[in-house]
Amino acid sequence: LDAKALGEAWDRQKRMTKPAGSLGMLEIISAQLCGLSRKCPPPIPEPACVAIFAGDHGVHAQGVTPWPQEVTAQMVGNFLAGGAVVNAFAAQVGAEVCVVDVGVAADLPSPVQQGRTTGLLPRKVRPGTADMTTGPAMSREEALRALEIGIETARDLVAAGNKLIITGDMGIANTTPAAALISVFTGTDPADVTGRGTGIDDETHARKVDVIRRALELHKPDPGDPVGVLAAVGGLEHAALAGLMLGAASLRTPVILDGVIAGAAALAAKAIAPEVLAACIAGHRSAEPGHKAALAKLGLRPMIDLDLRLGEGTGALLALPVVQSAARAMHDVATFDSAGVTEKR
Amino acid sequence: LDAKALGEAWDRQKRMTKPAGSLGMLEIISAQLCGLSRKCPPPIPEPACVAIFAGDHGVHAQGVTPWPQEVTAQMVGNFLAGGAVVNAFAAQVGAEVCVVDVGVAADLPSPVQQGRTTGLLPRKVRPGTADMTTGPAMSREEALRALEIGIETARDLVAAGNKLIITGDMGIANTTPAAALISVFTGTDPADVTGRGTGIDDETHARKVDVIRRALELHKPDPGDPVGVLAAVGGLEHAALAGLMLGAASLRTPVILDGVIAGAAALAAKAIAPEVLAACIAGHRSAEPGHKAALAKLGLRPMIDLDLRLGEGTGALLALPVVQSAARAMHDVATFDSAGVTEKR
Repeated sequence: LDAKALGEAWDRQKRMTKPAGSLGMLEIISAQLCGLSRKCPPPIPEPACVAIFAGDHGVHAQGVTPWPQEVTAQMVGNFLAGGAVVNAFAAQVGAEVCVVDVGVAADLPSPVQQGRTTGLLPRKVRPGTADMTTGPAMSREEALRALEIGIETARDLVAAGNKLIITGDMGIANTTPAAALISVFTGTDPADVTGRGTGIDDETHARKVDVIRRALELHKPDPGDPVGVLAAVGGLEHAALAGLMLGAASLRTPVILDGVIAGAAALAAKAIAPEVLAACIAGHRSAEPGHKAALAKLGLRPMIDLDLRLGEGTGALLALPVVQSAARAMHDVATFDSAGVTEKR
Repeated sequence: LDAKALGEAWDRQKRMTKPAGSLGMLEIISAQLCGLSRKCPPPIPEPACVAIFAGDHGVHAQGVTPWPQEVTAQMVGNFLAGGAVVNAFAAQVGAEVCVVDVGVAADLPSPVQQGRTTGLLPRKVRPGTADMTTGPAMSREEALRALEIGIETARDLVAAGNKLIITGDMGIANTTPAAALISVFTGTDPADVTGRGTGIDDETHARKVDVIRRALELHKPDPGDPVGVLAAVGGLEHAALAGLMLGAASLRTPVILDGVIAGAAALAAKAIAPEVLAACIAGHRSAEPGHKAALAKLGLRPMIDLDLRLGEGTGALLALPVVQSAARAMHDVATFDSAGVTEKR
């Protein structure tokens, strides 16, 4: 973050017609946007685009979720047809939606295959990861390729004019690699960071914790080697999201993080380059316990905290108007002098 | 709330392409909007307008704030000139702003007096309340008149096409009557519900608590007589905001409540007619301790919780896109059947 712009931000906020500090967390976000853009006031971050990275997971075979794997491909079709919650929220807050297939296992629905939809970026590294309980989820080369796809997606979205990027994800069973990643990067026991995902029962939850524990015992991933961790127990969308954050940060473009998948990816991105956090804003806190642990480790405070646990980018989209409002206040609000308002005695 | 529409809402949410319950608090808001409008899906609540009720307070003479009283009138001028934070946020989220003068003490700035601004509703009941430590803040008739102005404002805003109303307030020293009202309606000691307002020091805070304590000892207000409570220790904007909520509820129009001033007013409105809460959504939780007590008593969970303590309607405006997104999801999101997505096993 640029020190000069940060200083200007705090100085300007003192002169704006409001009691000092009265915008709470929004003053911190405003200052971050100034430091990131090197401008005070900062550009209002619009237009914005949510990038949904979709992938499948070999660990699905271990029975960690009651949802069939083909739902990943079906939901990609739903996103591209505009029928998912992420589409409704994006329409309401004025963001675009794009879907990046980094590793969907099943064939995409026929309207997508026939080119009757727009918004898909076909970037499949492999059709789903391998089962992390029997071997690495992917090779190191594949993890790097997914990271590169994320970086390239950030570059393409910024080149297309977007001033802010929102993370989204789709992948049946993807809270399992997310919990594994969070366990590794935060040094927390899998039992404490493994949640109910889409709403699993006690038996499935116990199995999910055991699956993660076995995978970690098998690979003994080293948090000092983030690419190795992603390859061993990560997912293609987790790796790509980490790349997206790195790419956006290098372009000084803010990124609003969605839930637990983005939180896991941000831990990996931070392990690769800690400076990435300068561009990251925590959009919301999901109901997943691992997300709380991830945000604490990242030192990020969520904008929205309403028990969402859907993914897709839905929680982060709700934070977009908050972030934009923080930036707009820096532009539009009069100073005590200019408005002829008396300051406190 | 309409039971049939509520039932339809919960049924529809189960069929939408998302894990059951995964939208958390937004599912509760969606259902409330269905029950309120008697329709499922509910109308998307736009356009929306924030109504800023402005008034002054005789208790200012007791030294409860370092801000001069004329700032109320100056800020009304700032709102009408578009230079305040509420204007910036309203512009960002797509809401209109109007200002209702129910009791500003000083003359309004000359551009306003000369009719060079639009958006002011001149409804002055009296130029500021009297000092509650020496007598009632206003007469019972004046409190009723302020309530009526709030009801009429709701009627006018709905007649003008607004589908949702946002509460706003301006009044130097108005956290003092708010804390007094909250103390009375929640049965909490003044020390526990009196905050720092715009950021006062320890000495002023101690004086503020003492002022409230003395006023309550003088009037011994009966929470069973809410109009009497408003007259004794309330403010004109608090009474008018209570009326706004009652008027909106009677028109089945949702109201997003801002911070501690709206919380105090909602307690008064609830004491007059408990059904008012069916129309109320807590937009945010402010940093004021009294607001937490008020929300707990009202049984409302805030949408936004980011340490804002500015008032004007700013916190509630940030919640508008969240509420609208909740409604839009009910409209736009496909069902498992229609989207060809497999349900969980």
